[in-house]
Amino acid sequence: MTTLVPLDVPAVLAALSLEEKASLCSGADFWNTKAVERAGVPAVMLTDGPHGLRKQATSADHVGLTDSVPATCFPPAVALGSSFDADLVERIGRALGAESRTEHVAVLLGPGINIKRSPLCGRNFEYLSEDPLLSGLLGAALVRGIQSAGVGACVKHFAANNQETDRARVSAEVDERTLREIYLAGFERVVTEAMPWMVMCSYNKVNGTYASQHPWLLTDVLRTEWGFDGVVVSDWGAVNDRVAALRAGLDLQMPATGGHVTDAEIVAAVRAGDLDEAVLDRAVERILTLLARSLPAVREGGAFDVAAHHALAREAAADCAVLLKNDPVDGVPLLPLDPAATVAVIGEFARTPRYQGAGSSQVNPTRLDDAWTAIRELAGDRAVFAPGFGLEDSANDEALRAEAVEAARGADVAVLFLGLPASHESEGFDRRHILLPAAQTALLAAVAEVNPRVVVVLANGSTVQVSDWAHHAAAILEGWLLGQAGGGAIADLLAGRTNPSGRLAETVPLRLQDNPSYLNFPGELGVVRYGEGVFVGYRGFDAREQDVSYPFGHGLSYTTFGYSDLDVTLDEEGGTVSVTVANTGSRAGKEVVQVYVAPPASAVARPVRELRAFAKVALEPGESRRVALTLTRRDLSYFDPRQRRWVVEAGEYAVAVGASSRDLRLTTTVTVTSPEPVAPLAEDASLEEWLAHPVGSRLLAERLADAVPNLLTDPEMRQVVGNFPLARLATFPGAPMTPAEVEDLRIATR
Amino acid sequence: MTTLVPLDVPAVLAALSLEEKASLCSGADFWNTKAVERAGVPAVMLTDGPHGLRKQATSADHVGLTDSVPATCFPPAVALGSSFDADLVERIGRALGAESRTEHVAVLLGPGINIKRSPLCGRNFEYLSEDPLLSGLLGAALVRGIQSAGVGACVKHFAANNQETDRARVSAEVDERTLREIYLAGFERVVTEAMPWMVMCSYNKVNGTYASQHPWLLTDVLRTEWGFDGVVVSDWGAVNDRVAALRAGLDLQMPATGGHVTDAEIVAAVRAGDLDEAVLDRAVERILTLLARSLPAVREGGAFDVAAHHALAREAAADCAVLLKNDPVDGVPLLPLDPAATVAVIGEFARTPRYQGAGSSQVNPTRLDDAWTAIRELAGDRAVFAPGFGLEDSANDEALRAEAVEAARGADVAVLFLGLPASHESEGFDRRHILLPAAQTALLAAVAEVNPRVVVVLANGSTVQVSDWAHHAAAILEGWLLGQAGGGAIADLLAGRTNPSGRLAETVPLRLQDNPSYLNFPGELGVVRYGEGVFVGYRGFDAREQDVSYPFGHGLSYTTFGYSDLDVTLDEEGGTVSVTVANTGSRAGKEVVQVYVAPPASAVARPVRELRAFAKVALEPGESRRVALTLTRRDLSYFDPRQRRWVVEAGEYAVAVGASSRDLRLTTTVTVTSPEPVAPLAEDASLEEWLAHPVGSRLLAERLADAVPNLLTDPEMRQVVGNFPLARLATFPGAPMTPAEVEDLRIATR
Repeated sequence: MTTLVPLDVPAVLAALSLEEKASLCSGADFWNTKAVERAGVPAVMLTDGPHGLRKQATSADHVGLTDSVPATCFPPAVALGSSFDADLVERIGRALGAESRTEHVAVLLGPGINIKRSPLCGRNFEYLSEDPLLSGLLGAALVRGIQSAGVGACVKHFAANNQETDRARVSAEVDERTLREIYLAGFERVVTEAMPWMVMCSYNKVNGTYASQHPWLLTDVLRTEWGFDGVVVSDWGAVNDRVAALRAGLDLQMPATGGHVTDAEIVAAVRAGDLDEAVLDRAVERILTLLARSLPAVREGGAFDVAAHHALAREAAADCAVLLKNDPVDGVPLLPLDPAATVAVIGEFARTPRYQGAGSSQVNPTRLDDAWTAIRELAGDRAVFAPGFGLEDSANDEALRAEAVEAARGADVAVLFLGLPASHESEGFDRRHILLPAAQTALLAAVAEVNPRVVVVLANGSTVQVSDWAHHAAAILEGWLLGQAGGGAIADLLAGRTNPSGRLAETVPLRLQDNPSYLNFPGELGVVRYGEGVFVGYRGFDAREQDVSYPFGHGLSYTTFGYSDLDVTLDEEGGTVSVTVANTGSRAGKEVVQVYVAPPASAVARPVRELRAFAKVALEPGESRRVALTLTRRDLSYFDPRQRRWVVEAGEYAVAVGASSRDLRLTTTVTVTSPEPVAPLAEDASLEEWLAHPVGSRLLAERLADAVPNLLTDPEMRQVVGNFPLARLATFPGAPMTPAEVEDLRIATR
Repeated sequence: MTTLVPLDVPAVLAALSLEEKASLCSGADFWNTKAVERAGVPAVMLTDGPHGLRKQATSADHVGLTDSVPATCFPPAVALGSSFDADLVERIGRALGAESRTEHVAVLLGPGINIKRSPLCGRNFEYLSEDPLLSGLLGAALVRGIQSAGVGACVKHFAANNQETDRARVSAEVDERTLREIYLAGFERVVTEAMPWMVMCSYNKVNGTYASQHPWLLTDVLRTEWGFDGVVVSDWGAVNDRVAALRAGLDLQMPATGGHVTDAEIVAAVRAGDLDEAVLDRAVERILTLLARSLPAVREGGAFDVAAHHALAREAAADCAVLLKNDPVDGVPLLPLDPAATVAVIGEFARTPRYQGAGSSQVNPTRLDDAWTAIRELAGDRAVFAPGFGLEDSANDEALRAEAVEAARGADVAVLFLGLPASHESEGFDRRHILLPAAQTALLAAVAEVNPRVVVVLANGSTVQVSDWAHHAAAILEGWLLGQAGGGAIADLLAGRTNPSGRLAETVPLRLQDNPSYLNFPGELGVVRYGEGVFVGYRGFDAREQDVSYPFGHGLSYTTFGYSDLDVTLDEEGGTVSVTVANTGSRAGKEVVQVYVAPPASAVARPVRELRAFAKVALEPGESRRVALTLTRRDLSYFDPRQRRWVVEAGEYAVAVGASSRDLRLTTTVTVTSPEPVAPLAEDASLEEWLAHPVGSRLLAERLADAVPNLLTDPEMRQVVGNFPLARLATFPGAPMTPAEVEDLRIATR
């Protein structure tokens, strides 16, 4: 930020008329805010693009998803999540900031950090993970990176926007504990740690109220609790009632509405006394502050190094791909490929990469690498190509398959590029299943029949089922969507020029039906019940002890890592986890050290374990390093919706360090003593609660010492009525106390 | 009902003072209503006991679950549910009515028809099934039977009382569709088909409001919609706010409250103008009407034939046990037992039967048969007994086990009586797991090592896991809790003197974790979310295509049955299912013909199939019979909570007839044409909804015919914004219509 502030916000605000202030609260067109030239207020541009800039090249008066200026297409969020690497993500953020600045863009509309509640969500490729810690840490890194260029980031879509089906109307019915622990936690981290300039509200309703006009979300939680000081912008077209939205805390409506009718609604509401002008002033002040923040960079602009950004995109892509499986064939793991091997490269995706998803995030790349070209550069004539299938489902071409099988038969290794056709996933709709197209799995089976040395490279924006075909492949490399440089990155990984280090940011289930949200996705009749509560993703698979194909956090390497000397210091305020990790193999590589905490027996149903910290560590062969990770009070807590606060319970916490959520290498158990005061007995405290209360149990025993056996003292009766409020039991015939006496006794416990 | 009405209800009502009326609205003590002698209003008695009378023998001023007058202990509901036999259940109801009359009891507090949402519910033994049709039909049969004696039945616990944990306070959070289709459906059937004199409200809250003071439940649904004309009584101690409860429709509070304070609260509320006296009058009128209905029988009394009722209990028990497994050993099914075989009878439960559950339903039986005595009567010296284990978990007695193994080694067949100790299940608390005690499964494994001819007979009030030990047993007879004559019934079944005909009224899962309610049972912090919605029991297992140990409706026989000639006539109002069922084996037996209906693709998430009709058919060897079952409009419907009505969708309905929910023998598909008018386009109708609407799509196409390509016509854009309200899209820059034009077009579609 320059010291030359081009806008004197208080002065400008004071100079604006009511109509001018209202006019600033909605867009001029699709991508620009409105100027007020008289008062020296310029217009600025916002553009799409969590993983690359999508600045429309033509006039901005249509929504066209088509031509935009060329920009680097970095790996989309689905891949970045698997990097488990905040430093890498922050570097990408810096590059995105530089490109934005070059194009004089004030705010880049990303990152998207919604939780992947179901693999079916059509927009999962824009999101990072099923886990809020990973989503929040990487989201914050991207914001820091973007904003380091003097350009704003906009975290989205706030909140509980976890599906595309009926997205503009559906009400996500989520209890507050689940919201706090899962769906808001990532936003909380991004806002409190990275201070984004902008937050975008989502289209959907949350518990019956549009997110765009939800005072609790947009003001109580976002601003009052978390201290957000930026602008809340609507998702494009998310505003239902402009005045209610403004009152709830939505500052900027985008895009323009026909004839700017909502500006007039604001003016009319102020004139009619329905809207306090101070509410409008606050919104305008925030918008002006955003303009002031962005103007130096927007005016100054810049340039970026296309080749360097492409190289960064390639480095990132290599760090995002996840090696799911690498079984030995004839005693040797199939990957990396033997440099002398002949290779049949099969699958249209090798030549025509799927590298990003469809919808508002679609970038026009500066260049585009494909894997086939990159492999050929490495392998020369030892590589042959066969498309194997057409890009859309219907193209189950027998001739293509036969040609591919012949190519596989003649080669030492067959590398199959499989994945989801672009038509399977997009903003705007959800998938109905998670299967690969049948033509592809049939091709794989046919290839595996003639050649046991099969590698599958996947391209998909969200989890696909692998359990029906994984046995045909000795190795599986999950490439997600890797951006414009993914083709080269994959060639590097296959050849062993880089070592895979991605880890799953979402569970690969055996079947879609196993997903915890399955019975409640995507809801019906305008409502989606988040019936699985906090048991999203691995939290649900672990709670039900379900087998999965590959668990959250899983990813192989061409080297091996050892863990030793776990040291945990922990009390109710948090602590430190230290562990030594060593590269015990023969290649340089990166390990993702993951810390999972298992809570003690609890008053609420808690996940078996939750990811609470992680670090990506690069190690040369033989090298080891001491890694220290921090746990906070919050990492031990659950959210109590009755007290509306985070609670740490006393008991034994198991702190485990591992290479995945189901590959825990070392575990230490720590007893945390009660940090909570003993909860006072409530008016409706049950007999059991009285008996469990240190003072209450004593007073009650004294009071009943002389009573003949009765419903409060008889063991069999206690079993049947123990969960009744004591005061209610006191109304029963023959009760040895009256309700008034119970109340007196309760007061005496305090 | 006699023609001599002993109470002139209107006259008495008119003669009562305000205080007297209020006094009639709560009990005199634990079991009796209050009299108003001045006005000729007598007191009557209500007693516990869905499966037998529990009339306390001593003075009624304590809650003691102990001594009560001897009464026939029929099989508890857990077993009756497995009978799938409404005629049998109605006969038991008649016997219960006769015993009530003998004891001058006005109302028998049963049946309990709550849905078994989880096998963990401690009171499941008092409930019939996980399925509302079965619960409703058998519940109605019991009510008809009881009331045929001139005594009242009281269906309970209304509603959504599906757990014991925190039962007096917990709020069951259930959406209306789920309430209507699952949790209320059984009550609706009992009320509308059998007209019980009384309904008992439950302890818990439903969606935040105590069931005891829930106007929607107790008045809108129960009386206005279903036409209930009887008395609503509180579960004992369920009233929280007496005046609110009265206003909501709760007539009679039980038991007495100390000093009758709640009567005074009613009087005070009327005096203060907070309660319309007409509300009180209606409640009193209903209570007086109940008295009038019951007095002839209560005064006349009667007698019952103890031996005949015991014989009925034995007949019923034999029809309730479910033969889960009967594998051949050496080529012959192990059951029925070879008459010449020597038998080792193992397990304390053979000698000390578990035959009913603990809590308010516990009956003092007129006599008690045990299986060991009954088997010895049949087998004489060919049978030996070894207890094998003690009755409580801790009694893992090595000596008992060794003795039992020796007995098994020396016998042709080992019959093991396993089950849950009484301490594992009771009113008042829920189970934490569904496993048999480890001492029992260890015993079974040890026995199976020395003798491959093992029969397991189970005693348990709710499902137990069998997947961990079923491989040790060639035959498994699920006896549930079979009442006082269960011992003899089991001997009859083992010997083949009767043929098993029970069918599972609840799924036996592979693991507790597979149960659809698992992640949401029993809730926390005063709330239990019914997150699985309508997918309760087999509806959930089927929806997620989960393997189970034994599916809903399963049960083997010593004979075999064939199905043929399925004939279905069906339209939107319902229809008839006819099928021929034949006994194709060599023994007389009973088959339960089950009709499952699978709905078409739907606007809501519907179960794969649901039980919609069943019939139990007795057939001699070689005999066949044509069975006709009725389907109603309701059997095709789902409940639409937005329209608040039952909706039949057009499409293909698959009607299947089978021997279990997963043993469907014949299926016919019927196309039901649209019985519903085309839903008018709503103001917020989405572009997709416009395109799917017959008139809307035409008008929109005409309107847009000349427009340049835009966000409404471009296929790629439609994919991304198709789920937006059309009127919202019309506000976007470049939209070819204004919102006002959309509204005009919408009006034109009507």
